[in-house]
Amino acid sequence: MSDDATRHRAKMEKRKAVQDAEVAAKTVEKGLLLVHTGPGKGKSTAALGLMLRALGRGWRVGMVQFIKGGWDTGERHAMAAFGERVVWHTLGEGFTWETQDKARDIAACRHAWEVAEGLMADPTIRLLVLDELNIALRYDYLDLDAVVAALRARRPDLHVVVTGRNAKPALVEAADLVTEMGSVKHHFAAGVKAQEGIEF
Amino acid sequence: MSDDATRHRAKMEKRKAVQDAEVAAKTVEKGLLLVHTGPGKGKSTAALGLMLRALGRGWRVGMVQFIKGGWDTGERHAMAAFGERVVWHTLGEGFTWETQDKARDIAACRHAWEVAEGLMADPTIRLLVLDELNIALRYDYLDLDAVVAALRARRPDLHVVVTGRNAKPALVEAADLVTEMGSVKHHFAAGVKAQEGIEF
Repeated sequence: MSDDATRHRAKMEKRKAVQDAEVAAKTVEKGLLLVHTGPGKGKSTAALGLMLRALGRGWRVGMVQFIKGGWDTGERHAMAAFGERVVWHTLGEGFTWETQDKARDIAACRHAWEVAEGLMADPTIRLLVLDELNIALRYDYLDLDAVVAALRARRPDLHVVVTGRNAKPALVEAADLVTEMGSVKHHFAAGVKAQEGIEF
Repeated sequence: MSDDATRHRAKMEKRKAVQDAEVAAKTVEKGLLLVHTGPGKGKSTAALGLMLRALGRGWRVGMVQFIKGGWDTGERHAMAAFGERVVWHTLGEGFTWETQDKARDIAACRHAWEVAEGLMADPTIRLLVLDELNIALRYDYLDLDAVVAALRARRPDLHVVVTGRNAKPALVEAADLVTEMGSVKHHFAAGVKAQEGIEF
């Protein structure tokens, strides 16, 4: 074996020992509260990926969309492949600049939250996505303390994923895992330009 | 209508006008190069969500996993629901600290890249995920210039998603959309504590 290969192996053996110890240290199993926030793409999309992974494990999963509009129907069609194992509710009235009616938005969010509470109580659901709940909380369309308390009091075997920009600090504090999706570069047209503030 | 509701409607009308103008300005359709990078969770998971969305649109999709290990088999099982519409190749040999054999890792990455090139040339594939390609590039297991050139030369109707930490600047420059997944909070055990450097 070359010197380079030997050095590589020694380095990787050390790294593997660290990794294995880390994995061994994680023995607690519990339903997680995950938050996907930040201005970048991928918050709802990653939640969708988690649903797919959970379906692959044989679980039943739920989705409540608090603010319709950010989603097209592609993923909903795809989920039809899993039949009754996916419970999907689109309850928002569209982004608030679509409806321009605050009272209606509030009523829609409150109804969506009631549906979410019902799914949280359903023992057949193992993963529940509350899509754009952060937007509803940001506009104070729902009571933050009540929502966080209910999420904290979730069943021990229920994973909940909350998506949307500007996650409230109280929700971040209650969460087990928070990912901030940052927008490094974002445009659709050709003529690709670097965004201001990017390091390349 | 109350003053508050009137103000809300006026504000939202303005916002809707801005949104509509933005949407109208985006008329170019092309296959995008998307990069999911950063230390946080959700890079591969969001790619999986994109696959599901594409499947919902009736597309055929491909997945090449350059580095096995970060994925369990849940999502692969779930994808079986879509039959021949998903082409899935797990070609990496595990993370490099698992194999501890650099020559074998390089050979596996090169083979994976050949498979990826084949799928890029297959006109039935509309979305291709190159999972953990960034890791292969970071370790110089593949030629960066050749990979970026091939990605730039992709078919106009092919979307490619590249995942993995530490995306190379040349890849970021070639990409249409780059999301950095930041880890705000990440732990599995109970006894939730704020991570160092978090603002709450």
